[in-house]
Amino acid sequence: MVKGEKINFSIPSGFPEFLPSEKRLECYLLETIRKVFESYGFTPIETPAVERLEVLQAKNNQGDNIIYGIAPILPPNRQLEKEKAGEGISELRALKFDQTLPLAAYIARHLNDLTFPFARYQMDMVFRGERAKDGRFRQFRQCDIDVVARRELSLLYDAQMPAIISEIFEAINIGDFLVRINNRKILTGFFQSVGVTQHKIKTCITIVDNLEKVGEAKIKQNLEKEGLSLKQAQKIIDFVQIDGDVDDILDKLKHLSQNFLESEQFSLGLMELETVISGVRNLGVSKNRFAVDLSIARGLDYYTGTVYETTLLGHETLGSICSGGRYEELVGTFLGDKMPGVGISIGLTRLMSRLLKAGILQALPPTPAQVMVVNVREDLMPFYLEISQKLRQAGLNVLTCFDNWNLKKQFQLADKQGIRFCVIMGYEEVKAKKCSMKDLHNREQIELTWDKLIREIIRRLS
Amino acid sequence: MVKGEKINFSIPSGFPEFLPSEKRLECYLLETIRKVFESYGFTPIETPAVERLEVLQAKNNQGDNIIYGIAPILPPNRQLEKEKAGEGISELRALKFDQTLPLAAYIARHLNDLTFPFARYQMDMVFRGERAKDGRFRQFRQCDIDVVARRELSLLYDAQMPAIISEIFEAINIGDFLVRINNRKILTGFFQSVGVTQHKIKTCITIVDNLEKVGEAKIKQNLEKEGLSLKQAQKIIDFVQIDGDVDDILDKLKHLSQNFLESEQFSLGLMELETVISGVRNLGVSKNRFAVDLSIARGLDYYTGTVYETTLLGHETLGSICSGGRYEELVGTFLGDKMPGVGISIGLTRLMSRLLKAGILQALPPTPAQVMVVNVREDLMPFYLEISQKLRQAGLNVLTCFDNWNLKKQFQLADKQGIRFCVIMGYEEVKAKKCSMKDLHNREQIELTWDKLIREIIRRLS
Repeated sequence: MVKGEKINFSIPSGFPEFLPSEKRLECYLLETIRKVFESYGFTPIETPAVERLEVLQAKNNQGDNIIYGIAPILPPNRQLEKEKAGEGISELRALKFDQTLPLAAYIARHLNDLTFPFARYQMDMVFRGERAKDGRFRQFRQCDIDVVARRELSLLYDAQMPAIISEIFEAINIGDFLVRINNRKILTGFFQSVGVTQHKIKTCITIVDNLEKVGEAKIKQNLEKEGLSLKQAQKIIDFVQIDGDVDDILDKLKHLSQNFLESEQFSLGLMELETVISGVRNLGVSKNRFAVDLSIARGLDYYTGTVYETTLLGHETLGSICSGGRYEELVGTFLGDKMPGVGISIGLTRLMSRLLKAGILQALPPTPAQVMVVNVREDLMPFYLEISQKLRQAGLNVLTCFDNWNLKKQFQLADKQGIRFCVIMGYEEVKAKKCSMKDLHNREQIELTWDKLIREIIRRLS
Repeated sequence: MVKGEKINFSIPSGFPEFLPSEKRLECYLLETIRKVFESYGFTPIETPAVERLEVLQAKNNQGDNIIYGIAPILPPNRQLEKEKAGEGISELRALKFDQTLPLAAYIARHLNDLTFPFARYQMDMVFRGERAKDGRFRQFRQCDIDVVARRELSLLYDAQMPAIISEIFEAINIGDFLVRINNRKILTGFFQSVGVTQHKIKTCITIVDNLEKVGEAKIKQNLEKEGLSLKQAQKIIDFVQIDGDVDDILDKLKHLSQNFLESEQFSLGLMELETVISGVRNLGVSKNRFAVDLSIARGLDYYTGTVYETTLLGHETLGSICSGGRYEELVGTFLGDKMPGVGISIGLTRLMSRLLKAGILQALPPTPAQVMVVNVREDLMPFYLEISQKLRQAGLNVLTCFDNWNLKKQFQLADKQGIRFCVIMGYEEVKAKKCSMKDLHNREQIELTWDKLIREIIRRLS
């Protein structure tokens, strides 16, 4: 190869790559999310990026997502061998496009080694071969939690989800948000009661799910296309727009249930919703963080009960920043069994990239180093190394400047990288086990003993 | 699809998948490694799993590793569209098999946004389409650091590497280990001085690199195959086996350099090695943690100076658990420029799996939860939720038992998952804002107020 010639080294379109300052923000977000997940006892797992294609296609739930297949690029001398092996369709491998079917496969693979209810989190990369559009990635990280039971799963697990969402977004500090809660059984029951035929209900729910995006008129049109009368469509639209605080809405639903609707689904859904809301309150979620919103449906048709969406107030165009719900059959797919579960998902890569663009989140300094030990005189390097190690042992992140640059350039380097403290030692300081510390936040420079230096830096950082 | 029928949901061969207890250990190892990396000012980056194939094939450094290509599996109605587009070889995408060329591409892509010397760490998954053998994976995580300069890179960066390796393996606490250090220039210089022709030197170094694996006789044979005389081969073998403590070996090398060898490479390598060793000492690395070993060469032919291997003493069969070295041209590949760098790599997936198998590391409990709030009476659930939240706010990981199982079953569940504390409250306790705490480590059960409970659990955990 001639060096550098002709090679296109740009990032393949649609694959995100962050600068250090952005990647450090992602690490911080991941740690914050992880801590909240773990505080509720969720345990980490990771499934391979690669699954058998038949696993990923086991349900028609990939929507329009295009799956990436993988195959080894064999050197010519091994092609033959491969042809002999005659790998068929059952040998096809592909990259996972979400973490749902992989979770189902994981549970099927390790059924007897897991404890149920099984509460796991997963923050893996997933891959989608779709056209790369603004804010859409072909590789991105999803932060998912699910809790899955063998038979029965308490509704209090559903109640924990809004508490977890609230804690995460409060910790990340992105402003006011609202977790909007609904129950699919309420929608199903209502649709039944206005006379929508059973096999059209899922389609109608999917239509209604777009209310916020496409507006009332379009929804009406689409419902009528499905054969609903104008009156039915209007009833549905009026229903999903029932407004008010949580108790108002619950009262209205109770009123409807007791006086007008004779649907078991509806009353079951209402009972579930009440239990969940009561749990959310008992978990101390502040009342401005959650609402009942009957228009929330979640497009994915595997949800059967509680559903959630999270809106960043004032930034509604971002769409839901954390969504999920309860399902009955999904996780048991490979076991031929029902296994109820409830989960939520944060599309972290997309969320972070949009929050950065909107100025809601700021990238971090490009280095984790908090201290730079400046190189004043090359022959004092042993002492620079010694003080660097002392600072590290105290838990600080330290860069030692090995290049023999002038002091101005070294300070500039620290400044450019967001390193707050510079430690400066000439011959006299070293002899006295002292040093100068420059705090680049306020340009203050003070002289200290080595021991006091460490304490002073820690004090200023805390 | 008929449920569960016929679908092979097993893990594709060669792709690792951990149980929660193992994944938790991996998370712990990653955090430990990350902390050490960051304490030396290395900053995180992540390159996409997918690169253009031409990037991954830019150097012949993939050895026998087979690259996985990827391609979208298009639904039939989009196949045509694809054929029209006529994607050629330049459109081929593939999964990265290591992090070296991706680092070179990253630097080329972001050259003006990075600060040099650029010190980065990366703990991404890499993929190799090789035959899955014991301990060999097709997907695994590598923990790499490299520091790269535009022009000159101080040898003190080389000196930091053994310090970093030592801190990591001391923190992980896997027993005694030894970082073995050498310099390729010393080998090259010696080979020159015994008359090995220039173009055979790299091959001979690769041969010698296998000394420990295949033994002296085989090495001799292989060197003779390359046209070396028995005498030359013997000289080389005697040389790389020079034994003794660090100063002994340095003295012997100095003696050779001053009296017998007239090789610039040799004396340059020796000077570099002395500088590195002196830095390692100034960084306070304990003397039983590192050695000079002239037989270390690293097979990969891009190393040009310092090279490292790390041996777990008493477990030599594991091979090197952390290796690396200095290179000159690799990272500048796409820029057509020399960019000196030095780095090390830990093959974490393989290392962890082998250390687990050898009993050197133990998996963690399968849940991060430290406390389980027991469900004594369903109607007290609001209080169970309240105390759970109080414990979480104090930084503890808490499971609330929502299932109405008998107490024995709940304690068993806690025990099975390695949850240490159970919090038990009946009606009387709740009324008095008290509870019982059972410590499953010693089976002790005590009664406490809620406030004291939190302090007592934190005390016992610390």
